Amino acid sequence: SESPTKNNTEPSIGHKMYETIQVSCEDRITKIFLNRPEKKNAITLKMYEEIGKALEEAGKDESVFAVLSGVGDYFCSGNDLNNFTNIPPEGKEKMANDSADLLEAFVSKFIDFPKPLVAVVNGPATGISVTILGLFDLVYATDRATFHTPFSQLGQSPEGCSSYTFPRMMGLGKATEMLLFNKKLTAHEACNLGLVTEVFPDSSFQKEVWERLKEYGTLPKNSLAFSKQLIRVNEKEKLHAVNIQECERLKERWLSEECMNAIISFFQNRAKL
Amino acid sequence: SESPTKNNTEPSIGHKMYETIQVSCEDRITKIFLNRPEKKNAITLKMYEEIGKALEEAGKDESVFAVLSGVGDYFCSGNDLNNFTNIPPEGKEKMANDSADLLEAFVSKFIDFPKPLVAVVNGPATGISVTILGLFDLVYATDRATFHTPFSQLGQSPEGCSSYTFPRMMGLGKATEMLLFNKKLTAHEACNLGLVTEVFPDSSFQKEVWERLKEYGTLPKNSLAFSKQLIRVNEKEKLHAVNIQECERLKERWLSEECMNAIISFFQNRAKL
Amino acid sequence: SESPTKNNTEPSIGHKMYETIQVSCEDRITKIFLNRPEKKNAITLKMYEEIGKALEEAGKDESVFAVLSGVGDYFCSGNDLNNFTNIPPEGKEKMANDSADLLEAFVSKFIDFPKPLVAVVNGPATGISVTILGLFDLVYATDRATFHTPFSQLGQSPEGCSSYTFPRMMGLGKATEMLLFNKKLTAHEACNLGLVTEVFPDSSFQKEVWERLKEYGTLPKNSLAFSKQLIRVNEKEKLHAVNIQECERLKERWLSEECMNAIISFFQNRAKL
Repeated sequence: SESPTKNNTEPSIGHKMYETIQVSCEDRITKIFLNRPEKKNAITLKMYEEIGKALEEAGKDESVFAVLSGVGDYFCSGNDLNNFTNIPPEGKEKMANDSADLLEAFVSKFIDFPKPLVAVVNGPATGISVTILGLFDLVYATDRATFHTPFSQLGQSPEGCSSYTFPRMMGLGKATEMLLFNKKLTAHEACNLGLVTEVFPDSSFQKEVWERLKEYGTLPKNSLAFSKQLIRVNEKEKLHAVNIQECERLKERWLSEECMNAIISFFQNRAKL
Repeated sequence: SESPTKNNTEPSIGHKMYETIQVSCEDRITKIFLNRPEKKNAITLKMYEEIGKALEEAGKDESVFAVLSGVGDYFCSGNDLNNFTNIPPEGKEKMANDSADLLEAFVSKFIDFPKPLVAVVNGPATGISVTILGLFDLVYATDRATFHTPFSQLGQSPEGCSSYTFPRMMGLGKATEMLLFNKKLTAHEACNLGLVTEVFPDSSFQKEVWERLKEYGTLPKNSLAFSKQLIRVNEKEKLHAVNIQECERLKERWLSEECMNAIISFFQNRAKL
Repeated sequence: SESPTKNNTEPSIGHKMYETIQVSCEDRITKIFLNRPEKKNAITLKMYEEIGKALEEAGKDESVFAVLSGVGDYFCSGNDLNNFTNIPPEGKEKMANDSADLLEAFVSKFIDFPKPLVAVVNGPATGISVTILGLFDLVYATDRATFHTPFSQLGQSPEGCSSYTFPRMMGLGKATEMLLFNKKLTAHEACNLGLVTEVFPDSSFQKEVWERLKEYGTLPKNSLAFSKQLIRVNEKEKLHAVNIQECERLKERWLSEECMNAIISFFQNRAKL
């Protein structure tokens, strides 16, 4: 079935087994589902790697396009902040460097993906799962979805090429409200700003979206891939440069007092609840 | 009168005789009308040449700006697919090369046009007549107009610089729905996405639009031309590069099996009706 | 108080005395108010210099961000056309050169501003006070505000980088209507086009806006500044080039007959009232 049930860890035919995601291929569509619903699909280090790997495979397989979605009620709650708590013996600098390298490689996979890439946003989205939407070709969202990038609350700065894609997509003012001033958008607001391509009622979301995508899967494969590549070819170099700049800046941010204090305060507040 | 009657082939004063278009100049406006209403103004090889020629002349004449519109109920149904059926003795490669050269030269005329360029979209628009709208300065449309670019249905890929102008104008998602997934827009949808500047009720369309344009024709000519050129100067080089890329890709597409099969199937379906 | 009373010329603590603007700093916000309400805050040569100076200082002070607003009922009526009537003994060319240099330096200050820059548009805005809004990070407007750039009526051409920022923000058609064809926008129209970030009812405008900004002032300073810089770093060079092109073009325009006649006619019409 199109919308996988929770924690279904059966491997898909023709795809290697993944631990943190589910990958399947049907109707000429490769489907990648974040599969950590008990943590709102927060992205662990392992997941960054597996998603990147799955995208690389999907780019080469027989599918016409690929879809990213989430198992459960959430699309993705962003970077798992526990990623910052396992400081290696080499120290914080090592952790910051490794994290920046991992993030840069992860985002590169989206920039370079050679076929249409579709996000099926099945619930609330936060952080990196929002910013990378600017690199997707289609973004379909349930009306229950929200979009939130609270970077400055955590003393951080934008990633996923959002410092480039968001202002171009929605204008400087609206991008600033999201990326600097932590404004959370409803699905309809996100659609008006171009971050979401179409919003569907939650009750019929899965049915309507997958019916449409199934139909899209019947179109000429090469025509779609080449058309996407035409659209992107002149942006790729710029996007990679932006990705590098953003990761460099985050490296500095992660070692800054502003960021450290904000993350400590996040965990303290959570502990109080 | 401003809206020419069908098939009026009387030459306009001060303009050379054209076979497939009507060109006239009044109120400091050069008006170019596609004049093949019995075929919904589908563009033949001859029309590509004549439109290009008319634009070149309009760029040099005394007018303040130029207008493109269609005779009859349609704006333009796009490239006449019969252009693909007259395969020259030299073979398909020759036809693909010639077609790509013709298209590139045609689109270049729009990129380089030195004065404001206005589209008066008097009815449905398809294919190349939609994609070049991204190169116009103003696009006024009747509410009866629709906008459709079914490239992948025909195994083809975008032209008219739309792979560049559409994502910038309407965002990646909406551009992808049009350019890859064959979505047809109403006039109001096209206006919300920036493809159309303003929509008018069909009953008053011709009257309202030409009254407004007549007024615009009284403004300082150089101020308008120089202002347009300021807006465009930094994009021209990029647009020409995109135009070349798109025509190269179409050359490959026209010789592909995907495209051949799609066009044959188009004619077979039409024959059945 | 946040909304200064008219003509309050008391110098702010920690800021040098200005003649034509009011500068104050509270709640980690540097506030710059145009203070020539009796002339609708039309910008004199002195004001260009003082605003530029104040921005330079605000970029270096302890504030988290800076705000530009106007004293009285108007935001700003644009360039004071009397700036063109004091022709120096060296002649018109000297005046045109000096004006272009002054304008270029003024606009550069907005391009280079290193922190978030917020416009609080307290009433109608005209000319240069509209075009520079494309260089702000947030633009909050009262519903009483209007936005008008009647360049071609005055035989002139766009400045403030609007020939670059407006088409990207609102699309070519809407930018052309404003920058070439003198279309005046309401606050809500400007918001739909991305020129304004949010519109507030005039009755609660000052209260709502300053409450929100006070809250924004509590966010981590470096995170905000670095995030803005990430967004802008790849555009700066281009914006400076556009600024130079626009000022070059205006120098030519100011010496043209079209422009001279249009300005003479402006003063004659005003004298008749």
